[in-house]
Amino acid sequence: MSEIQPTDRTRVRLHSERGVFDREKIYAILDEALVAHVGIAVDGQPRVIPTAILRIDDHVYIHGSPNNQLLMALERGAPACITVTLVDAIVAGRSGFGMSMDYRSVMIYAKAEKISDAAAKESLVAAFIQDILPGHIVRPPKKKEIAATVFLRFPLTEVSAKIRDVGVVDPKDDFELDVWAGIVPLKLVGGVPQDCPSLKMGVATPEYAKHYSRGR
Amino acid sequence: MSEIQPTDRTRVRLHSERGVFDREKIYAILDEALVAHVGIAVDGQPRVIPTAILRIDDHVYIHGSPNNQLLMALERGAPACITVTLVDAIVAGRSGFGMSMDYRSVMIYAKAEKISDAAAKESLVAAFIQDILPGHIVRPPKKKEIAATVFLRFPLTEVSAKIRDVGVVDPKDDFELDVWAGIVPLKLVGGVPQDCPSLKMGVATPEYAKHYSRGR
Repeated sequence: MSEIQPTDRTRVRLHSERGVFDREKIYAILDEALVAHVGIAVDGQPRVIPTAILRIDDHVYIHGSPNNQLLMALERGAPACITVTLVDAIVAGRSGFGMSMDYRSVMIYAKAEKISDAAAKESLVAAFIQDILPGHIVRPPKKKEIAATVFLRFPLTEVSAKIRDVGVVDPKDDFELDVWAGIVPLKLVGGVPQDCPSLKMGVATPEYAKHYSRGR
Repeated sequence: MSEIQPTDRTRVRLHSERGVFDREKIYAILDEALVAHVGIAVDGQPRVIPTAILRIDDHVYIHGSPNNQLLMALERGAPACITVTLVDAIVAGRSGFGMSMDYRSVMIYAKAEKISDAAAKESLVAAFIQDILPGHIVRPPKKKEIAATVFLRFPLTEVSAKIRDVGVVDPKDDFELDVWAGIVPLKLVGGVPQDCPSLKMGVATPEYAKHYSRGR
């Protein structure tokens, strides 16, 4: 399995045992996430924006309107820090100090590359749909829709993950306390789908919408 | 309900109808979130870190180790952009252009203020526990634990929310297509709690851990 070389920015300093540089593990986190938080610096001021994220091979993709200020800044070459976080469990320790969360996060440092080719953009539309709602089939995109969507991609070169999956870590002295300790696993689950009020008569709610879940 | 005045940075430009400046609505989003993404700029480079967040009155609080580089930078006065995002639904339109998500997000621009008073820090430990896992009772904190935890707070002055809750927005021309459209609601839910392997004999898994959920 290919290992990514840490840089000064991606080296995990605090709890270095949680640092993960294995591509397969990093990609699994990116693939499970629906949303990333993209940070840029504008005149020394940070700005952090949530947006849908898609990974294909060794790149992540984001998209949006040509009037989107974040995308405009990234197109102009602003360096980005893209962070994805999945919270896996509440960790209940026997002290405040022992309270924590199990989580998996990925941090990417990269600059954007714009996708200009219309056919490539069409493929990305299809890939985004299958990433967000696997199985969903839509009408083909119109030329003006493709023209009105900016796609940017970022290479997964300077990237690291941080994973906490150890549950309760209390000092042994606390084991004798009459206090519950354990974890509450968390999962993002899909509820009962709601049909669009304008749905054409006879179109049934599909199975892929009825049993939605992500990742493991 | 008190309205917050938008600034140049918090005004919602794209889809301005999604901009929300009502304190009650903003606070409900912050209270439901477990994690925020905190952005800082370091020598013009953005850095975005996930961390647990707690709101009390008109401030949000984060905490961590004195060796945490993010907290150190914030203590030195680095301006922060703190973003919280809750994804409420997958929105399945009849085209790629119609695919979206319903979400609620909050963005805060602020500088940190350090909490140094030990009693105030003890209160914050208790508040963080009740925020993360309501009902959980732990042993009192030790002096060295309080000393080893940095708490920072940020005023909710320059803050805005962005809410998309309109579900499918397809052009009318698409209504006649034999394509399903609708939403799949998403929720972060708690699974079956797992007791700490070192749990003291006789301590039962509490009800608050068995029925975990957040927000609405």
